[in-house]
Amino acid sequence: MEKMWSGRFTQDASTLLEKFNASIMFDQKLYREDIEGSIAHAKMLAHQGILTDEECSLIESGMAQVLSEIESGSFEWKIGDEDLHMAIEKRLTAIIGEAGKKLHTARSRNDQVALDFRRFVLRKNREITGQIKALMGVIVDIARDHTTTVLPGMTHLQHAQPINFAFHLLAYASMFKRDCERFESSAHRNNISPIGCAALAGTPHNINREMTAQSLGFDSVSINCLDTVSDRDFALEILFNISTLMMHISRLAEEIILWSSYEFRFVELSDEYSTGSSIMPQKKNPDVPELLRGKTGRVFGNLMGLLTVMKGLPLAYNKDTQEDKEGVFDSVETAEISLEILREALKTMTIKPQNMARACKLGHLSATDLADYLVEHCGVPFREAHHITGRAVARAEVLGIDLSDIAYTELHAIDERIKEDVMPFLAIEHSMNARVSQGGTAEVRTLEQIIYFDHYLKDIK
Amino acid sequence: MEKMWSGRFTQDASTLLEKFNASIMFDQKLYREDIEGSIAHAKMLAHQGILTDEECSLIESGMAQVLSEIESGSFEWKIGDEDLHMAIEKRLTAIIGEAGKKLHTARSRNDQVALDFRRFVLRKNREITGQIKALMGVIVDIARDHTTTVLPGMTHLQHAQPINFAFHLLAYASMFKRDCERFESSAHRNNISPIGCAALAGTPHNINREMTAQSLGFDSVSINCLDTVSDRDFALEILFNISTLMMHISRLAEEIILWSSYEFRFVELSDEYSTGSSIMPQKKNPDVPELLRGKTGRVFGNLMGLLTVMKGLPLAYNKDTQEDKEGVFDSVETAEISLEILREALKTMTIKPQNMARACKLGHLSATDLADYLVEHCGVPFREAHHITGRAVARAEVLGIDLSDIAYTELHAIDERIKEDVMPFLAIEHSMNARVSQGGTAEVRTLEQIIYFDHYLKDIK
Amino acid sequence: MEKMWSGRFTQDASTLLEKFNASIMFDQKLYREDIEGSIAHAKMLAHQGILTDEECSLIESGMAQVLSEIESGSFEWKIGDEDLHMAIEKRLTAIIGEAGKKLHTARSRNDQVALDFRRFVLRKNREITGQIKALMGVIVDIARDHTTTVLPGMTHLQHAQPINFAFHLLAYASMFKRDCERFESSAHRNNISPIGCAALAGTPHNINREMTAQSLGFDSVSINCLDTVSDRDFALEILFNISTLMMHISRLAEEIILWSSYEFRFVELSDEYSTGSSIMPQKKNPDVPELLRGKTGRVFGNLMGLLTVMKGLPLAYNKDTQEDKEGVFDSVETAEISLEILREALKTMTIKPQNMARACKLGHLSATDLADYLVEHCGVPFREAHHITGRAVARAEVLGIDLSDIAYTELHAIDERIKEDVMPFLAIEHSMNARVSQGGTAEVRTLEQIIYFDHYLKDIK
Amino acid sequence: MEKMWSGRFTQDASTLLEKFNASIMFDQKLYREDIEGSIAHAKMLAHQGILTDEECSLIESGMAQVLSEIESGSFEWKIGDEDLHMAIEKRLTAIIGEAGKKLHTARSRNDQVALDFRRFVLRKNREITGQIKALMGVIVDIARDHTTTVLPGMTHLQHAQPINFAFHLLAYASMFKRDCERFESSAHRNNISPIGCAALAGTPHNINREMTAQSLGFDSVSINCLDTVSDRDFALEILFNISTLMMHISRLAEEIILWSSYEFRFVELSDEYSTGSSIMPQKKNPDVPELLRGKTGRVFGNLMGLLTVMKGLPLAYNKDTQEDKEGVFDSVETAEISLEILREALKTMTIKPQNMARACKLGHLSATDLADYLVEHCGVPFREAHHITGRAVARAEVLGIDLSDIAYTELHAIDERIKEDVMPFLAIEHSMNARVSQGGTAEVRTLEQIIYFDHYLKDIK
Repeated sequence: MEKMWSGRFTQDASTLLEKFNASIMFDQKLYREDIEGSIAHAKMLAHQGILTDEECSLIESGMAQVLSEIESGSFEWKIGDEDLHMAIEKRLTAIIGEAGKKLHTARSRNDQVALDFRRFVLRKNREITGQIKALMGVIVDIARDHTTTVLPGMTHLQHAQPINFAFHLLAYASMFKRDCERFESSAHRNNISPIGCAALAGTPHNINREMTAQSLGFDSVSINCLDTVSDRDFALEILFNISTLMMHISRLAEEIILWSSYEFRFVELSDEYSTGSSIMPQKKNPDVPELLRGKTGRVFGNLMGLLTVMKGLPLAYNKDTQEDKEGVFDSVETAEISLEILREALKTMTIKPQNMARACKLGHLSATDLADYLVEHCGVPFREAHHITGRAVARAEVLGIDLSDIAYTELHAIDERIKEDVMPFLAIEHSMNARVSQGGTAEVRTLEQIIYFDHYLKDIK
Repeated sequence: MEKMWSGRFTQDASTLLEKFNASIMFDQKLYREDIEGSIAHAKMLAHQGILTDEECSLIESGMAQVLSEIESGSFEWKIGDEDLHMAIEKRLTAIIGEAGKKLHTARSRNDQVALDFRRFVLRKNREITGQIKALMGVIVDIARDHTTTVLPGMTHLQHAQPINFAFHLLAYASMFKRDCERFESSAHRNNISPIGCAALAGTPHNINREMTAQSLGFDSVSINCLDTVSDRDFALEILFNISTLMMHISRLAEEIILWSSYEFRFVELSDEYSTGSSIMPQKKNPDVPELLRGKTGRVFGNLMGLLTVMKGLPLAYNKDTQEDKEGVFDSVETAEISLEILREALKTMTIKPQNMARACKLGHLSATDLADYLVEHCGVPFREAHHITGRAVARAEVLGIDLSDIAYTELHAIDERIKEDVMPFLAIEHSMNARVSQGGTAEVRTLEQIIYFDHYLKDIK
Repeated sequence: MEKMWSGRFTQDASTLLEKFNASIMFDQKLYREDIEGSIAHAKMLAHQGILTDEECSLIESGMAQVLSEIESGSFEWKIGDEDLHMAIEKRLTAIIGEAGKKLHTARSRNDQVALDFRRFVLRKNREITGQIKALMGVIVDIARDHTTTVLPGMTHLQHAQPINFAFHLLAYASMFKRDCERFESSAHRNNISPIGCAALAGTPHNINREMTAQSLGFDSVSINCLDTVSDRDFALEILFNISTLMMHISRLAEEIILWSSYEFRFVELSDEYSTGSSIMPQKKNPDVPELLRGKTGRVFGNLMGLLTVMKGLPLAYNKDTQEDKEGVFDSVETAEISLEILREALKTMTIKPQNMARACKLGHLSATDLADYLVEHCGVPFREAHHITGRAVARAEVLGIDLSDIAYTELHAIDERIKEDVMPFLAIEHSMNARVSQGGTAEVRTLEQIIYFDHYLKDIK
Repeated sequence: MEKMWSGRFTQDASTLLEKFNASIMFDQKLYREDIEGSIAHAKMLAHQGILTDEECSLIESGMAQVLSEIESGSFEWKIGDEDLHMAIEKRLTAIIGEAGKKLHTARSRNDQVALDFRRFVLRKNREITGQIKALMGVIVDIARDHTTTVLPGMTHLQHAQPINFAFHLLAYASMFKRDCERFESSAHRNNISPIGCAALAGTPHNINREMTAQSLGFDSVSINCLDTVSDRDFALEILFNISTLMMHISRLAEEIILWSSYEFRFVELSDEYSTGSSIMPQKKNPDVPELLRGKTGRVFGNLMGLLTVMKGLPLAYNKDTQEDKEGVFDSVETAEISLEILREALKTMTIKPQNMARACKLGHLSATDLADYLVEHCGVPFREAHHITGRAVARAEVLGIDLSDIAYTELHAIDERIKEDVMPFLAIEHSMNARVSQGGTAEVRTLEQIIYFDHYLKDIK
């Protein structure tokens, strides 16, 4: 197939090259950005007197037709057209004739692809932020009902101190808020127009980059064309931000898997979001959180992939950079479906407060409270209080009971500074509510956090 | 859609779950392995008296029909069928009735997927090895014509010593030979049958694992079922082996890009394997080696992805593992097309010996020869010879000439132990041919290497 | 060795465990952050009446002594002390007695390590930003002298269009500016105090988190303790930001390596920043940019390492997280020395304008100008102009000359719309200066960019 | 400091360059390989008449002194010496004079570093294999005592089928056996001598590469020098093999963490291999398996790091390659200490069969047995049996009992083909022992596996 760039060539590209080289099978996803960008470019060319108004109108109407052909499915994507830019321009020229050939004045595929891909990424930053906030909304709504649902707070997967389930969930709301901030920060930092950079060095045509930037919603115009056509920082940023997001999701997924096990049974996923076994009829498997956890692999891989691609590339555009898109598309789709399904799985998940409460009777969760009692009520230095409490725990284990159920006399026998007024401090609920420092698990502090996130999310309600 | 495992469920899976959970859109690639595996399993069941011969025959003929439907494109892949195993079994049952339902006796999807995926990977190990050898054949053929084509051997991208172009190319033949050895070693190590492990712990049915192993071409039967159903080492190995292969290819690609530049012009890619610019009519771009270099990114990423997936998974099967396939498929396809296009691009590439020869007059390539002359003919310790030569090079630079063109008197003035008999040692071709140690660049040694590789590749000729 | 936490243990930790578990050999780097954090904590405890003023004074003076012992090298770091927190607290208690044991009231190692590590990372964000700006300053200063130094602008490592060397260097200034913005954004986003979160859930002590936050320079207090003690997003961010920075550096390094080669000779590194060969006396090797390029490997690896560590960790603190520090330390040190040596290597590098100018006569750099002439002066649609120019280039190649040296009659013979007034458009310098669009390479636009970066860097001058 | 290669330089290297460039602070670890390599090289030179026997003897005795100085700690490693090769040669020359300067005849640092590093890696392949086998020995010994200890086999972290604990542990023995095979295969494949390749192209000296290869224990001599000096495949292989090993370890670590939790309590780590909390006196934390799990991060990172370094490097040696060592050293040390501590932690771990048995009463572990009963004893097709069993499980859940405790009448009511003879099939122990297929969990099959591994490990006993 004859190429638009084939003027000096004596032989046609091989079919194998076409297949290897073409990006059209995946970059067609950018059709909307490409058409919008071309229209903005054409209008600017007309405004600057480089195109006539008639030519510009023809391009606009021709592009409207191309857009409608693509969206209706009648547009034919051919591998011989190499990429979506060529395919669209060729179709445009077929529809409107000579004017179509003038559209590429003062631009290059290098800045066209930079424009289309950047705008796609910027849009996805916004859409993913919205989805994260929707997920946070579900988390906060569940939390609202569980500020007095006590479960064992863990470190090292060992029972540590009693916390409430709302507080636990809100840890994830905190993580997801940071994710939103990263996506927003990246969208802001990269909202800079590449169009008008042409191949690498700008153009002699009297163009107006401010005008195209403004009409396409950019905050400003890029400062150096050579950098702009080879800059893929915005793509690396979304790959990193999705990696961090999916890492957070993998942590929540791990917990849901644990909580769904026979050993924990803190929650039960709905039948809608569970699957069975082809061989073991009794199984109800948490496939959703398992897949969510597993999908960290591909998004980490996509990040590593693009970092590798960019390493050591001389300026300016190199074909290697074409490898930027598939990984980003894959990570974006992974983030989108993951956020959606996690939200629905959480919504329909049954929470089992009795099981959580029962678990609080294992692991001497109020041990820290005994130590704190020794410090605050008996004037024992913390390090010594820690040792005394260690002995109390050892005694409870010998007795086969939890520290929260130990008799006062047992404690007094260990250290006579412990008086009967210690007893309330050992109760699980008291222990949870005692942690009243800012950001702590006490119900009053958890309620504060809910208000904080309600405020943060007020625009999505 | 009702699932085969839905006996104990009260609610249907959501459409979203179906979409998220299904692997059928990518694992259909394993249809041949799945059908072959099922037939081998059915024959074994019949041999063991678990199926009747009639049931087995029905399954075989039914599977033949399924295979033909798939290959003719009339098989309908539905996302609601979850995976290819379910889809094929369901269709089989629709065709042959009750006997189809008996096929799943004494097996599980866990060992079925382990079987299908492993056999696919083993086959690809063999196919890729074959492709690498074909590439090596092209390299050796080009080398055969260039054992006296001298070019500057480089270290640090600086001219170092003269070598011949055949010798340079054969460095890549050496790398690719190691790649072959890795693929072959992996294929051998992992040629162990998983089938018969059932869900995780074996089966009470009186099966014969040796029989299925043998009929499917495995060397032996896996030793522990729990390990077998969650083992993905074979997949990690092919991902690593492809990463190393593509790393080697990226090095050759980098050199072709350099050699194609105006600064080097050691080679010229054919028009068939070059592309042009949409804006700069004079450009002839080495897109093929650039993309080859860039594709390291995705294969490194796929390796990192699966390592991440497997990290910390408890035994045995977890749904995370479903994330094993797409990365392997992508890396395999990348390796396949890369090997093919590199082979063709090399075949059609023009080599420019004059330009290589001209470059040999830059960089004092025979400096080491002068040092060696001082050691061997004047009895100067190497370290001192190195210093004397440094001064000779400095003098040549002052004179604006290459050391190979310096007058004998200049050298004698630097160190009077240097006699007129030094002159032949400074000639570029002499310098190249002087390196006669085993594995060296001297023509005689290069020819030895060609014979070595011809022997290695004799089976593919 | 008896541990501070060993109250309930009946056996001592093994020596092997001590060695495996200890972080003290690397986390001692955080001593300053740890001591400052402890003093701020003690003052807050005193302000809240939890410690007496005397105890607080003792802690302050004791810590002053510990600090001085560490900085003078007399402090003994013992692997048996496990981590720096334990080592410092133990030494403090040895110096001041009982009051030392009270310091750990209302805090935990979990929030202590979160505090120390976060403050270290925040400080390094600022320091690295400063170093990047210093590097940018050197780049802009070199650029200032080279706004009329013409060299071939490249795409695909093929000569594309003439640009000036200042413009080329400023592409890197643009990249580094984005790096600064990322480090600054991360420092801002994560400037949130973790101290007071205790082990995971807050503390019952009447502490004042706002006070410690303020005294340590934080903007605010973290919202949820459970999240805070296990949050390592700030560490991932610096690892990513350093990866992107080093990727940019690797691109510049690649270009310096190319430019230093015999084939390019656009620059020459100073002897101070070059090395020689142990065997080839004539070699002058660009080790510095090679190592800079190679160091992408370790920083990408460190990023991937911590992402892997964090994947799938349940809340809250897990020992896995201890693996967060060495990678960050290594990446930070790599960034620091890389920025420093790159700055010095650039400062002392010789630039060779004649060689750059000579290279501009290869590759028909003004081909785009001919096409633009056809569009602007002859009314030819761009796509057609591109084809005509392709024929002109082919003709120049047949003649063995560069397009910038072709006779007017040759062009007129190809397309008679080309008139004699085309000639100035073909001159290299004219071509460079023609690209006057915003961000372009024309001298006037390059000067604008220098002013822009001077303004950006005005605070470091 | 004057460098050995500084003959043509007019300025000294900067101190900053020395620091950046030097590898001596980490490559000194290769001192033994370097000295052995030099002695073998000297002997060969003497044998070939290039050195006199006296010179060779001097070198041998001088090297003996250098070795003893290094091992006694009196050798002074100076950053100005750049790397260990230079440092050792310089010291040798200081000791023995002129003869020392002749040692570098017919070799280069490029092949010296290739030799030293390759031999280090080959040795570590062997040592790590030995350590893995020692770990396997411990696993098999524990397994020997637990072939009738029943616990719930899991898929998706859900109870699936009853298995015995020996069978579970032997899954890891299987994985570790594959690891051994990979290390051994790599050691075999790469046991090829690089020495004699000199800088890149061989040497004119009349050397004997077979002789040095043989004296250093290599199987053969490398085929192409250009490849050999830049080949780091052996380093990538050990990094990958360690990554896979540590991934396996992370899976076992994850299980030990789960099993140590209050929810499981299947095992208890000894006090020697556990740690406590600085704030919560009751805590006993599984730090060892958590760190083991976390250390996957750094070894994956090291692999990714070296792949990144090697990507796109032109031939032959580039300084980037110096970045190969630290990651390998770190991964090797990580593997070594991890294998050691895991072995000790397993040895001293208490196993709790009662808790495992109790867990078997949750999750209807014998559901598959009921389905198998329906197939084998009632002639029900598997898919239908699966559905009937699903209903039985649902009934047991309504009754609040495990399927293994259900009354026969309940089952008969669900499907009248179920007779009273079903009862033994539902017993947990029967279910475990029913899985008698090869590689299955039945005691008889587990014992077979123990014999298999005893045989495999017989050489280490």
